[in-house]
Amino acid sequence: MVLANNWFTEASKESGVAFSLHLHDKVHEEKTPYQTIAVYKTQTFGYLMTIDGLVMLTSRDNFLYHEMLSHPAIFSHPAPKHVLIIGGGDCGTLRECLRHRELVSVEQVEIDERVTRLAERYFPELTEANDDPRASLHFVDGIRWIEEATEARYDLIIVDSTDPVGPAKGLFTEAFYRHCQRCLGEQGILVQQSESPLLHLSLIAQMRAAMTAAGFSFVRTLQFPQPVYPSGWWSATLAGKGNELTSCREQALQQCTFPLQYYNVDIHHASFALPNFVRQYFAQQTTKED
Amino acid sequence: MVLANNWFTEASKESGVAFSLHLHDKVHEEKTPYQTIAVYKTQTFGYLMTIDGLVMLTSRDNFLYHEMLSHPAIFSHPAPKHVLIIGGGDCGTLRECLRHRELVSVEQVEIDERVTRLAERYFPELTEANDDPRASLHFVDGIRWIEEATEARYDLIIVDSTDPVGPAKGLFTEAFYRHCQRCLGEQGILVQQSESPLLHLSLIAQMRAAMTAAGFSFVRTLQFPQPVYPSGWWSATLAGKGNELTSCREQALQQCTFPLQYYNVDIHHASFALPNFVRQYFAQQTTKED
Repeated sequence: MVLANNWFTEASKESGVAFSLHLHDKVHEEKTPYQTIAVYKTQTFGYLMTIDGLVMLTSRDNFLYHEMLSHPAIFSHPAPKHVLIIGGGDCGTLRECLRHRELVSVEQVEIDERVTRLAERYFPELTEANDDPRASLHFVDGIRWIEEATEARYDLIIVDSTDPVGPAKGLFTEAFYRHCQRCLGEQGILVQQSESPLLHLSLIAQMRAAMTAAGFSFVRTLQFPQPVYPSGWWSATLAGKGNELTSCREQALQQCTFPLQYYNVDIHHASFALPNFVRQYFAQQTTKED
Repeated sequence: MVLANNWFTEASKESGVAFSLHLHDKVHEEKTPYQTIAVYKTQTFGYLMTIDGLVMLTSRDNFLYHEMLSHPAIFSHPAPKHVLIIGGGDCGTLRECLRHRELVSVEQVEIDERVTRLAERYFPELTEANDDPRASLHFVDGIRWIEEATEARYDLIIVDSTDPVGPAKGLFTEAFYRHCQRCLGEQGILVQQSESPLLHLSLIAQMRAAMTAAGFSFVRTLQFPQPVYPSGWWSATLAGKGNELTSCREQALQQCTFPLQYYNVDIHHASFALPNFVRQYFAQQTTKED
């Protein structure tokens, strides 16, 4: 069957898969200095934001990505206070971070202010914490920001970016990770969205190798479902300066009262369980490098 | 964008999502007494089999579904010997079962022989164990089979069916589960594919309620990624006659030498970790019934 025009489709020739959402209508489109942003109203997934034709988020299922990009790293740090988010213009990750009372500051550095302005309009539930006095939003280049940031300034750096093409390309390099490593405190953790375990395994392995080369003492990849991204299966990769992640602040997590739709203690541990084919691929890559 | 004709698309108006695979060409299509089966060669996922326009499996990612429908249940049973598979015509689940040396017999009851004959041709890796002397294939109605089967004949019943429409509809009812319950031995376990946690949560809850009503002493749902099924996120639900599942034969699993691409001890436990929104939905449904 061929879909009618009232479906949004993201197709990747390289991976040979496409995902579509049934639309009500397009409610906004604009070309910014960085990219083309569009917003659609869908039939069943609320609003959909796309950048350069790629799905960024929908109202219905963004909770998966935003919770899994923030909470596992925050609860893995023994005493997080200062957080930097690079990208994250829709502010969903920022909102999740600000739920943690123990955080003192959360700086967000998004290159394209229009992403945030459109999120305020179409995803107001994600930007509801933007006025929190602990939050500061900067609309500048994240790579330059990290190059100029002072040493050991952050406990957590969250890279909530688009795919490694266009403006986000420089966020997937050893040079960038070196700056992150320098700007993180003693037990600091970097966490970055790392694409699909099925479709982009070599990219994940490259990221892990670059993070290790940049001086991080451990690297861990976690996985979660994300229906609107290619393959419906997504990952985030954590790199840390302290001891290997073996636990999280489980008691704090058990007792936390803020709303979590996906994440909980069991999901925390479960998300780090990797399939055999992923383990084997990572092991082969590590052997090749030795 | 609108996809060209050389893509296969499965769209669901109800869920408002569609998934597509880039094709080389259609290699087979036939109308059987039960359904229309088609086989395509895809660009990146190997062969694709569809039934009545719905994706059944691809060469590339069927390992996720087949491993997760068989191994968690088999390793959860203390001493499995006799297995019944209802549906499962592509024989991928059968192959996974037969990897277990401790199994004495695996009977498969598939209503449509043509599914198996086409699997032999296009998915020969899945049918490679069909000649195992412990395997027997019956091409008859699974519902009638279970109605006529003797008491306590099986240790495991695996329902590897299509969606709960058409010939598979009767496999999602309390009456069917009662027969399964009767035909299972003391520690017997029924496991059934149970659709998407995001899109079909009310169906999963209904299945769980019907399994409980049929006399099973516990019900557990597990989840796994399945990129070619709607939402890319799938589940299976286990119902047991013995004590609540708290462990699996972990030592046997650690020592098992057969090839597993997805499943391992960590994945076993991880797959049973349920998201908050799923837990809350199940809890609400249970309260309503009380």
